[in-house]
Amino acid sequence: MLGRVLCTVLLVGALPSPAGASQGHISVILLGATGDLAKKYLWQGLFQLYRDQVSSGHSFTFHGGALAALEPGQRLMFDMLKKLSCPPDEPPNRCAVLKDQFLKLSQYHQLKTAENYTALNREIETLLSQEGLEEAGRIFYFSVPPFAYTEIAGHINGSCRPRAGAWLRVVLEKPFGHDLPSAQQLAAQLAGFFREEEMYRVDHYLGKQAVAHILPFRDQNRQFLDPIWNRHHVERVEVVLKETVDAKGRTSFYEQYGVIRDVLQNHLTEALLFLIMELPANVSSAQEVVQHKLQTFQALWGLQRSSAVLGQYQAYDSQVQEELPEARGHVSTTPTFAGVLIHSHSLRWEGVPFLLTSGKALDERVGYARVLFRNRAYCPQSGTLRDAGHSQCKPKQIIFYFGHGTLNTPAVLVSRNLFQPAMPKDSWKEVGDRSDLHIFGQPLSDFYMYSPVKERDAYSVLISHIYHGRKDFFITTESLLASWAFWTPLLDSTSRLPPRLYPGGVENQQLLDFEMVAGGVEFSLAEPAELLHPGGQMPSEFRAIQSQFRQSPLVSAWAEELIARLASDMEAAAVQSVARSGQFHLALSGGSSPVGLFQRLARHHHGFPWQHSHVWLADERCVPLTDGESNFQGLQRHLLQHVRVPYLNIHPMPVHLNRRLCVEEDGGAELYAQDIAALVANASFDLVLLGVGTDGHTASLFPRSEHGLEGAPTVVLTESPVKPHQRMSLSLPLINRARQVFVLVLGRGKHDITTLLSRVGREPHKWPISGVSPSSGQLVWYVDYEALLG
Amino acid sequence: MLGRVLCTVLLVGALPSPAGASQGHISVILLGATGDLAKKYLWQGLFQLYRDQVSSGHSFTFHGGALAALEPGQRLMFDMLKKLSCPPDEPPNRCAVLKDQFLKLSQYHQLKTAENYTALNREIETLLSQEGLEEAGRIFYFSVPPFAYTEIAGHINGSCRPRAGAWLRVVLEKPFGHDLPSAQQLAAQLAGFFREEEMYRVDHYLGKQAVAHILPFRDQNRQFLDPIWNRHHVERVEVVLKETVDAKGRTSFYEQYGVIRDVLQNHLTEALLFLIMELPANVSSAQEVVQHKLQTFQALWGLQRSSAVLGQYQAYDSQVQEELPEARGHVSTTPTFAGVLIHSHSLRWEGVPFLLTSGKALDERVGYARVLFRNRAYCPQSGTLRDAGHSQCKPKQIIFYFGHGTLNTPAVLVSRNLFQPAMPKDSWKEVGDRSDLHIFGQPLSDFYMYSPVKERDAYSVLISHIYHGRKDFFITTESLLASWAFWTPLLDSTSRLPPRLYPGGVENQQLLDFEMVAGGVEFSLAEPAELLHPGGQMPSEFRAIQSQFRQSPLVSAWAEELIARLASDMEAAAVQSVARSGQFHLALSGGSSPVGLFQRLARHHHGFPWQHSHVWLADERCVPLTDGESNFQGLQRHLLQHVRVPYLNIHPMPVHLNRRLCVEEDGGAELYAQDIAALVANASFDLVLLGVGTDGHTASLFPRSEHGLEGAPTVVLTESPVKPHQRMSLSLPLINRARQVFVLVLGRGKHDITTLLSRVGREPHKWPISGVSPSSGQLVWYVDYEALLG
Repeated sequence: MLGRVLCTVLLVGALPSPAGASQGHISVILLGATGDLAKKYLWQGLFQLYRDQVSSGHSFTFHGGALAALEPGQRLMFDMLKKLSCPPDEPPNRCAVLKDQFLKLSQYHQLKTAENYTALNREIETLLSQEGLEEAGRIFYFSVPPFAYTEIAGHINGSCRPRAGAWLRVVLEKPFGHDLPSAQQLAAQLAGFFREEEMYRVDHYLGKQAVAHILPFRDQNRQFLDPIWNRHHVERVEVVLKETVDAKGRTSFYEQYGVIRDVLQNHLTEALLFLIMELPANVSSAQEVVQHKLQTFQALWGLQRSSAVLGQYQAYDSQVQEELPEARGHVSTTPTFAGVLIHSHSLRWEGVPFLLTSGKALDERVGYARVLFRNRAYCPQSGTLRDAGHSQCKPKQIIFYFGHGTLNTPAVLVSRNLFQPAMPKDSWKEVGDRSDLHIFGQPLSDFYMYSPVKERDAYSVLISHIYHGRKDFFITTESLLASWAFWTPLLDSTSRLPPRLYPGGVENQQLLDFEMVAGGVEFSLAEPAELLHPGGQMPSEFRAIQSQFRQSPLVSAWAEELIARLASDMEAAAVQSVARSGQFHLALSGGSSPVGLFQRLARHHHGFPWQHSHVWLADERCVPLTDGESNFQGLQRHLLQHVRVPYLNIHPMPVHLNRRLCVEEDGGAELYAQDIAALVANASFDLVLLGVGTDGHTASLFPRSEHGLEGAPTVVLTESPVKPHQRMSLSLPLINRARQVFVLVLGRGKHDITTLLSRVGREPHKWPISGVSPSSGQLVWYVDYEALLG
Repeated sequence: MLGRVLCTVLLVGALPSPAGASQGHISVILLGATGDLAKKYLWQGLFQLYRDQVSSGHSFTFHGGALAALEPGQRLMFDMLKKLSCPPDEPPNRCAVLKDQFLKLSQYHQLKTAENYTALNREIETLLSQEGLEEAGRIFYFSVPPFAYTEIAGHINGSCRPRAGAWLRVVLEKPFGHDLPSAQQLAAQLAGFFREEEMYRVDHYLGKQAVAHILPFRDQNRQFLDPIWNRHHVERVEVVLKETVDAKGRTSFYEQYGVIRDVLQNHLTEALLFLIMELPANVSSAQEVVQHKLQTFQALWGLQRSSAVLGQYQAYDSQVQEELPEARGHVSTTPTFAGVLIHSHSLRWEGVPFLLTSGKALDERVGYARVLFRNRAYCPQSGTLRDAGHSQCKPKQIIFYFGHGTLNTPAVLVSRNLFQPAMPKDSWKEVGDRSDLHIFGQPLSDFYMYSPVKERDAYSVLISHIYHGRKDFFITTESLLASWAFWTPLLDSTSRLPPRLYPGGVENQQLLDFEMVAGGVEFSLAEPAELLHPGGQMPSEFRAIQSQFRQSPLVSAWAEELIARLASDMEAAAVQSVARSGQFHLALSGGSSPVGLFQRLARHHHGFPWQHSHVWLADERCVPLTDGESNFQGLQRHLLQHVRVPYLNIHPMPVHLNRRLCVEEDGGAELYAQDIAALVANASFDLVLLGVGTDGHTASLFPRSEHGLEGAPTVVLTESPVKPHQRMSLSLPLINRARQVFVLVLGRGKHDITTLLSRVGREPHKWPISGVSPSSGQLVWYVDYEALLG
């Protein structure tokens, strides 16, 4: 049959001669050939591929596969094929001829069992030998649910690989897992069947013209962008995808994924990476691009719970209840809206906020990636009194407009006061006067605006790239896993947070506006109580309470408020001390509890007299100071690098002398004690900040320690029950000489020890913290509600 | 005569009874009573004082003094007094009565000679004794040119002081000098006649209601402002005074001063200080305010030539030629426009640009101080689809509007999306809907706007403050000199720069727009050649020249440019090294030469990869690291405290071990060599920066040194011919392992050694610097013109 078909093609005189048929034959197998995606985009994309490549010298056959039996499957598939169309610029005659050929080259197969695949392979091989064709390669396009991946992959690998010398390209559609472990598992399974270069993971955003042009744009405009593509000039970067539709009818999928997995982890991240990656020398080298992507991920700060605001449109939960019988009675916390703040610590981007936002049931459908530049100009003449032209005082931005929205076309826009970009004339055309339109409050006439010469659907673009082997338009395993590694901590930490409910559409008003606050984001408007958790119970608000704990003052509040209070009290102590003695000697503990405190001090306490403060360590682990486990490293990272303590006022513990760790003979502890004696009047610290371990240890003084619990006010080497075992610590008597000791206790994990400590007396050998009682100073406990109340 | 007058006052039954006349008598002497300022403002201000205080219990007499003889002077003065008026809310009857009284209490005196002053004093004393009045005090208001100050001051001090127990207040009008030395001289002269508390130096901006309210506003709105009044929230601060008038008719004054001395050094600086100073606990304590002002000055980066853009309206020069015969043939470079960028290195404001701008012949008359906040929000709903209300995405700012312009009233404006400010209801009223008006592109409805309940002229406000002894509204000697100390370097470095010419009025268009670039400012538009210096000759421009010195590359230029070039080359070396190896090992020399370099690196090289740099010392003096003589201290002060080098990447030389200095047995030199060996690959520094002594020494390697000139690449103890004698230094062989060595030679003092070095060969024992020749690295000489050419 196919022999006839090929002849037919050869007989169509209007078409270019198939001189290049020597290039070989390509079999395209579309799995899920009767599904939605196939119907909407894929068959159309394959038809486009055929039209574009009919005279390339390759011959093609197209095989649709699905679970349905031959007869009904065939009917379903050919119903779709009959609706294929050509773009308006294709002459109708040629279109009709090509469509006719395409239909003849296409065939349906039931692909269910191993035998089905073997049969398919046999058919292809028979055709090749009958027609005397060399095989160029095979494309398998997986338009099937992810659970079917491995079985199909096994069949292909087992019986459908092309002969040696021909290539195999396997095209995979997301989701590629729903978190890092599941993505790793899926990747490992696929790696058992396919080589990395055989896999084409689709993120269809990479086929969108405006997204695909980000890197070429940066490349072709290097001369303008190089000086300004950095934190000194860029104010912020926004990547946004707003939808008006909701998840109705798709909740069975959506309920498992939510907006972050659905679009942020993939589409928006990819667009962001194109904007912020260091520019590869060759922007179309898949290898270079992926290397730069991975480096970019490495430079991003990890996401935390406070990095995101999440919302859910109000009707979502009832849609879930309706569509998913198993969800009855369970309140969904799946977010349908997310705003995420991402920061990089690269030299180029440090401090520049990257905002990723997406949501369903919003006011308009639009997607864009936008780089806003700082206003570095001052314009003495008032705007109304001049021809503003390219005024440097107008906003400056570069926008990659994905489509829809006001412009209703993909576009690249560059503020006229920036530069006139170089654009490839064959694929992008400048858009003339449309000054009636406004975008982000500015008339379009403020921009150089370009739109594609020919608007192309993302799938047809990507199918063409698959044909051309352009792996740079697809997601590699490495970068997929890097993306999941980046997003998973946020997914984990927010999985049980109730999202803010929003009504949907223009009713949302300001409800979803959010702001950057202290390194994270928060909704601008206070929680609108009436919308939230119609039936649910809200945690009541506590204020910081003050009371007594172990006969000393106790401050208690939720963790965040408690830390704010502690930081303020520390600043007050420092200011007082500097006023009194010109100096402030502060000894700090390591561990995770004070990290939030350090960050708060660095970000909010600009009046802290750091210039006059000495920073000491209360304890240290016997590891090199450069080690990630070193308390000093944590202090450096979260506090010292952000404030200005003079170098000579910083006193790390000398745990690493003579290139070895905490060896008695090196006398590190004595050295530190001498330094304290020399600099701190009466060896009395102005403030010592301590924590408490679940075993009652404090600083590095552990239960039943031989040293440091009594005796001289000095510095001691101790042994921890957990690794690294060796520690250096201020002794209890030295701590007790301090003017003030603040003890910070955070988290539910500390509830038991807190309860216990509230009952026991002074027994430092059992619970070292119980021995803290400054002989002539003040002790204050800062215990959060979780630790206090469990 | 006065007896009669006082009786008249007492007889006016409509006025409150002068029961408090026991408060004593105040004599006000206005010097320059017939001049312009007196005519325009001062008599009116004195009349206002009289109206306000007529029932205060004080009695008053007003004495106008000038050089004119009695008869013509009297006529001139009373012509002015006849035109005095009351504000509309004063009942006409009362006004007429008060004006009549004021005229009767006022008297003209010729005040020319010492005898005139003695006579004035006699008259006052006679009056006091005749009327049986206690003297409360005397106010001498100097409305005379500054050259007359000291003579008049001598007369007052010599013969016109009030009796013991009564106060003397001497009111001085600017200019108070034209640079730091002249201001110091004038201040010293005045200090010979008056005590500090007797002097009231007027900056009439401190009497403008919107300026005077800045500190009270900050005080009364602490709760809102505290969290946002810092570099994390403030985008920039602008203080602007635009005039439409030009200097015509006043060029004899203006030509000596120019715009910076005329308004930036005083008015705009004062407004800026109110905005950025740390808020005193008591904002009306003159002492606290002045202390905070001084601290604020200390935290400002010094101004440089690149800190300002200067302009001159085109007609200015011909006006000078016309009005000043002595200026013929000389082209004036006096600026009539200035834009200045100021930075603070305080923790609160680091990195926030403060822009001061003023000019004559601009497009509108307006003055304001404006704090712009960063946009920290993202608003998912597009502005057109919602009731924008208090949207967090609209610009946020606080404006102290001095007057004129669009609003034509003093005002305080706060964006509604910030907060509703607390304002004192008795003096400021909220302005209702004026949404027809726009300010900075926003409708007024976006602001809470307040204007004074009663608009008052600055001079009448200040005269009232003089009467009340409110010294916080006047400039103290200390803060005056601090301001001159701040502005004088800019005045010096720009005194001979040709300003950009501008046409004036709305014709200026974008010609004066300027931008922040690399820590300074530049006009946005390239120099419009046709406008510039129609006839004049410009000083020729030097460029950095490149050549050879001792067979190595030589870079030479004037010191400032040379340092800029060296700093750029260092940054490039650092960036390259980090790209190559992930690190940059930099060894720096002490001494005075590199100070300018350190400052430039700290201020201009934000791209320097400090996070990945290690900083080593090339040499050190054997003094404690805390000593002012320590090289490390200089490095810390001028460089390290301003950049972010991780603590563990900073490597001071261990000259102070075991609490003693550079003792052989302590092995400090060996320790440092070990550290180098451990951290620096191959002990090859990426860059060593050296200087040269007049004796040819470099680092701390001196002629005929026993150690370090040859042998092993190590660290040595050496002896300096000058104190402190003991030093530690990298050895020559260690230096010569470096990849790059830059030698910086600055100043005429180095001319002889430079000349000598250009002639001699390699003789390190005579001239250690001659032994610097990296074995496989590069040596570059940076020698300024003074050192090179003498």
